[in-house]
Amino acid sequence: MFEIFKETDKGRTGQLSLNHGFVTTPVYMPVATRGAIRVAPLNELKQLGYSLILNNTYHLVLRPGLEVLEKIGGTHRFMGWDKNVLTDSGGFQIYSLKHSMKIRNNGLEFRSPIDGTKFFFTPEFVAQAQNIIGSDIAMQLDVCLGYPASESEAKKAMDVTLRWGERFLSVEPLQGQKRFGIVQGGFSKRLRRESAVLTASLPFDGFAIGGLSVGEPEELMYELTYEVLDALPKQAPKYMMGVGDPVQIVELASMGIDMFDCVQPTRHARHGWVYSWQDGPQVIVRGKYKFDFRPLEYQPQYTYGYLHHLFKAGEPLGLFIATVENLSYMADLMRKLRAAIEGGSVDSLKEEIRYQWRKRIIGE
Amino acid sequence: MFEIFKETDKGRTGQLSLNHGFVTTPVYMPVATRGAIRVAPLNELKQLGYSLILNNTYHLVLRPGLEVLEKIGGTHRFMGWDKNVLTDSGGFQIYSLKHSMKIRNNGLEFRSPIDGTKFFFTPEFVAQAQNIIGSDIAMQLDVCLGYPASESEAKKAMDVTLRWGERFLSVEPLQGQKRFGIVQGGFSKRLRRESAVLTASLPFDGFAIGGLSVGEPEELMYELTYEVLDALPKQAPKYMMGVGDPVQIVELASMGIDMFDCVQPTRHARHGWVYSWQDGPQVIVRGKYKFDFRPLEYQPQYTYGYLHHLFKAGEPLGLFIATVENLSYMADLMRKLRAAIEGGSVDSLKEEIRYQWRKRIIGE
Repeated sequence: MFEIFKETDKGRTGQLSLNHGFVTTPVYMPVATRGAIRVAPLNELKQLGYSLILNNTYHLVLRPGLEVLEKIGGTHRFMGWDKNVLTDSGGFQIYSLKHSMKIRNNGLEFRSPIDGTKFFFTPEFVAQAQNIIGSDIAMQLDVCLGYPASESEAKKAMDVTLRWGERFLSVEPLQGQKRFGIVQGGFSKRLRRESAVLTASLPFDGFAIGGLSVGEPEELMYELTYEVLDALPKQAPKYMMGVGDPVQIVELASMGIDMFDCVQPTRHARHGWVYSWQDGPQVIVRGKYKFDFRPLEYQPQYTYGYLHHLFKAGEPLGLFIATVENLSYMADLMRKLRAAIEGGSVDSLKEEIRYQWRKRIIGE
Repeated sequence: MFEIFKETDKGRTGQLSLNHGFVTTPVYMPVATRGAIRVAPLNELKQLGYSLILNNTYHLVLRPGLEVLEKIGGTHRFMGWDKNVLTDSGGFQIYSLKHSMKIRNNGLEFRSPIDGTKFFFTPEFVAQAQNIIGSDIAMQLDVCLGYPASESEAKKAMDVTLRWGERFLSVEPLQGQKRFGIVQGGFSKRLRRESAVLTASLPFDGFAIGGLSVGEPEELMYELTYEVLDALPKQAPKYMMGVGDPVQIVELASMGIDMFDCVQPTRHARHGWVYSWQDGPQVIVRGKYKFDFRPLEYQPQYTYGYLHHLFKAGEPLGLFIATVENLSYMADLMRKLRAAIEGGSVDSLKEEIRYQWRKRIIGE
């Protein structure tokens, strides 16, 4: 299912073969949590070259519910999207409902924030739900921790996640569906390595690193990722969950990560942060953009001044244009990253991206 | 500037030749008050066949301001729209600010609702502003009344509007710009006819009917429109301001109106009313749509069930899809209306539209 095109000491390029077509890696996956990208139609995404997006099992089970998805025949038909969909299990989302969630040996118990209905997610239920959703890549149910977490908490969460991984795999998958295990282990190198080794002993098609990028220092995230990658099988695709910062994407891809997802580019867009290759992220409501009639980099029919106006006037078209711009930037970033890996110029790309995203912001 | 293709006793078809291309009539013009359609990118509108949209002078003067529009070279470059733009003067908007507005002989004085700045709109200023905006069709400044209004109020408003029309015309227009006078006269047949005759004596390129569709009975609107149309020159284009109801559009077009505008189709979309040829307007949040997997009429990649989900989940993509659907419906309605006029089947179209929009709603 995963062909590696080029393996270098600064990352690798490859291709996933999934039920709804090929996906070149390293890949950034836009997040359509509830079956929609905030705020862009999926045909725009297709035009930008995206062929793999995320849905969230937890959110889709709550609304519209599995009955709707079963009746229409899965999320692809529901959303009008004929490319691939990876579904996260929702472990992370349920975890963040802290007050109303209980971890039991069997699974996660929680109440719907929509209407208070009690739900109980077992590893088997999550696998069945992803079959109904029609996921091209299904993620196991896992137990997430925030930062910091004690070693004993981390050990417990890791052990439960591992058992849940086995139970998740006991359910027959959809024809052609790929299933990923999730490495946990908190912020201990030893536990991370142990979790990676044990998860790798299960017959998963790929492996994700969960429970990082949750507030720990950036350097610690890189160190723990190194431990995990070192212990996972080389041939398998590796997915770093929840990372969307361009600097971190380039850094982690150079270590061997193949897949990324994050709401950050679309959330930034809604808050008026517009990504730009030339100038880094731009806070479009600033007064300096009022008379800035340079065209947007990826939608040259619009200017920064126009986008400034739309945000100041509260016109929702601004959210749409900013979202398409940021997702265009991300698609372009991943193209440049793949070319840099193949061409041996990852270090200079790192420097360029770091300058865009760190020096400029600090300099302002 | 206006060529009539076919003149019948049930309306007429024709073509406006404007600075940014041809516009076939009868035409419905989507409203981009502040330089954006709520909620759809203008390239979508172009694909739907729209070639004439509205901006509002009052709103653009307040924000982004004429300085911005002058610097970038007009609203077409500002919005990224290379088709035609008609600008309303803003008389209606200023009128609806009642508490902070004063009608003087010279013009309208009001305070910006954004920052309280005092503005004074004279007929000449409005003409100059529309030159800076780069309007393809510029509307004169007028005095609007609500319903009901006494005959003496109506007479006064009509006289001031007429004087302002002359002063508006005293400003040199942009090369190729067309300028429309506005017929007022409240709810009196006599005054409406008088206003039409006097406005028609000024060298306008076209004529609008203002101050109707403001709460008066539908039959009265038709009667007053008849008086006005009877008194205006046949050859000139006639524009009924603020009417977007499909039943009324078909009725008024059959009387000889050539142009319509209204925020209703896009506002309805934002409130989850989705237009449909098959079933009339549909209130998409209703439970019956949850399992309704019929495709949308104009965007068959989406179903009513999906749109229901997006509105229930508060996903902004729903606003976008509903807006494109309603504007598709309106474009289709106008195509069908032009074909019906040319083919002599206006009465059966009237019946069909009335069934869609009246009987069904009453029946629910």
